[in-house]
Amino acid sequence: MSFEQPVPTIVRDGDAVVVIDQTRLPHELTFVRIETLAQAAHAIAHMQVRGAPLIGATAAFGLALALREASDDVHLDAACARLAATRPTAVNLHWALARMRARLTPLTPAARLEAAWAEAEAIRREDRAMCAAIGRHGAARLADIAARRDGPVRVMTHCNAGWVATCGAGTALAPVFEAHAQGLPVHVWVSETRPRNQGLLTEWELREAGVPHTLVVDNAAGILIARGEVDVVITGADRIAANGDTANKVGTYLKALAAHDNGVPFWVAAPSSTLDFAAADGTTLPIEDRDPDEVRRIAGPGEDGRIATIALAPAAAPAANPAFDVTPARLIDAIITEAGVCAPGELAAQRPEPAHG
Amino acid sequence: MSFEQPVPTIVRDGDAVVVIDQTRLPHELTFVRIETLAQAAHAIAHMQVRGAPLIGATAAFGLALALREASDDVHLDAACARLAATRPTAVNLHWALARMRARLTPLTPAARLEAAWAEAEAIRREDRAMCAAIGRHGAARLADIAARRDGPVRVMTHCNAGWVATCGAGTALAPVFEAHAQGLPVHVWVSETRPRNQGLLTEWELREAGVPHTLVVDNAAGILIARGEVDVVITGADRIAANGDTANKVGTYLKALAAHDNGVPFWVAAPSSTLDFAAADGTTLPIEDRDPDEVRRIAGPGEDGRIATIALAPAAAPAANPAFDVTPARLIDAIITEAGVCAPGELAAQRPEPAHG
Repeated sequence: MSFEQPVPTIVRDGDAVVVIDQTRLPHELTFVRIETLAQAAHAIAHMQVRGAPLIGATAAFGLALALREASDDVHLDAACARLAATRPTAVNLHWALARMRARLTPLTPAARLEAAWAEAEAIRREDRAMCAAIGRHGAARLADIAARRDGPVRVMTHCNAGWVATCGAGTALAPVFEAHAQGLPVHVWVSETRPRNQGLLTEWELREAGVPHTLVVDNAAGILIARGEVDVVITGADRIAANGDTANKVGTYLKALAAHDNGVPFWVAAPSSTLDFAAADGTTLPIEDRDPDEVRRIAGPGEDGRIATIALAPAAAPAANPAFDVTPARLIDAIITEAGVCAPGELAAQRPEPAHG
Repeated sequence: MSFEQPVPTIVRDGDAVVVIDQTRLPHELTFVRIETLAQAAHAIAHMQVRGAPLIGATAAFGLALALREASDDVHLDAACARLAATRPTAVNLHWALARMRARLTPLTPAARLEAAWAEAEAIRREDRAMCAAIGRHGAARLADIAARRDGPVRVMTHCNAGWVATCGAGTALAPVFEAHAQGLPVHVWVSETRPRNQGLLTEWELREAGVPHTLVVDNAAGILIARGEVDVVITGADRIAANGDTANKVGTYLKALAAHDNGVPFWVAAPSSTLDFAAADGTTLPIEDRDPDEVRRIAGPGEDGRIATIALAPAAAPAANPAFDVTPARLIDAIITEAGVCAPGELAAQRPEPAHG
């Protein structure tokens, strides 16, 4: 049996699209019905949808919604521009819009609306298949671990890269969801992932999918691994250099060090779109420094249930907020993409052939 | 020039003792005037005073306050029992009470009150001297680093072991405060220290003392060290085994791994009272598992300034909370106590001689 999202992250409903309002997670499961271009742009800009694959699919459906009003070149261009401006650095967003435009531009305006719905649906379906492929490859490796021990395979993860960020089973967590769907016993250590606490989304989506798990603070990774309570660490990747050095959410490198120090395998699971053969190694991967207020303040439901913001540190506290780190390839045992599993040193074989004239 | 606390953590004022109300830190600096045994017991039990050395001194002064009412054996015993029950696992508390009792019991009840004040003052003074000695030894090593580079010595620390937890310059942070007092340029990376965020106290006490510093989340330790932005990591210790393996606040081990991976020195600075020669190595050091609600909930001032508690994860989220980890001696470059600096392998020389009959 293969994984099905316990709650669909994006689904067409007649002339509209329904998504989970992720700004309310993990505390509340509510939905947003998107009927217009403006609503699609708002959902992406305000992070009601998040996760690169889900943002791409939402933009594609948003374009179909836009074309319901008018589908001439002027409207198509304007709708693409409006959606592209929602999250300027989201690569999948721009990829999805470019693909939609390439599909629609050659068509007559009259033919574009149906084609847009179909292409958006294809993007959604292909993302789902990509997640499933990562999940299958990773689940097979988890089954190898399960064959060597009693009890569940104990996976540690970091940040959020599960089904709620995609149209399918997720990226880094797809192996866990697929293994669970196949009946393999798994248990996941979920790391809080300060400062933005994406681990709380991971906790939520594991709970929704019925996968046994335990939430811990990021600091606990070392003692859990050293105590022998972790069989494998699996994280995602924001960008993977040609030699396998991997940029991912800050804190990933610390988990890789602890795994390596205790002989525990460390896997990176991510779509092949994160492979960056233009970067020879991790030294050239850019590290974003984000707003220090993410370190000083935090929000969540207060005792009356309403979302409140509290100060952890006063505004006078000097703070810094590097958002990513680089895990050297020497600490990584396997890289799992939809194409399969390889060692970091074998990535070069996946480099695309240069185009011939 | 040697370090002076910018705000005294405990000071006698006539027939009373004044302490900082640490439950309000780092958001508010207020004081508690302790005039009775009951108030002293309350201050310790409710963590208005915290940090092992400061708790010990407060208990000693609390005994002096108790003897103002009556100083016969019955009252002395009852007062000791009451203070001992405030924080059952605090070793310094019991050590201070045993020392006070040994000093007072042989005296006539009439002589006990003055002797109690004097002994409490001696405990405070000796703690201050112990902190200063750790600070001097560590500051000399920081000066060695300063001599080899331009700009400030960039120290990373973890948790809170500065002046606010002691009667002097602190333990793990004493080298920093002493170095700063001597005019050595230093900068401190302060790690938040989830789940109880003791790093916010460290941020506050560095700010109060005018030491340049930057607050970061625990996850940022790896990238900062890998980027070459840290010259030395200094943490405290809850217990140090005979071979140098060190139990300390959870997350310490991850910082030691990152330091080791990048050739950055890792020092443990702690009073010799944390040396446990009965433990051959780290495998026998106990690791406390604390209330998982510390992971799920957090408190701080809300927008109206009043302290509010917010949920990070819902109560339904399974959570675990190991509070300490063990850093193997092989990752530790120096152990600094009031007796001096040594490598972990040289600790055995500090083992006390067995008593002869």
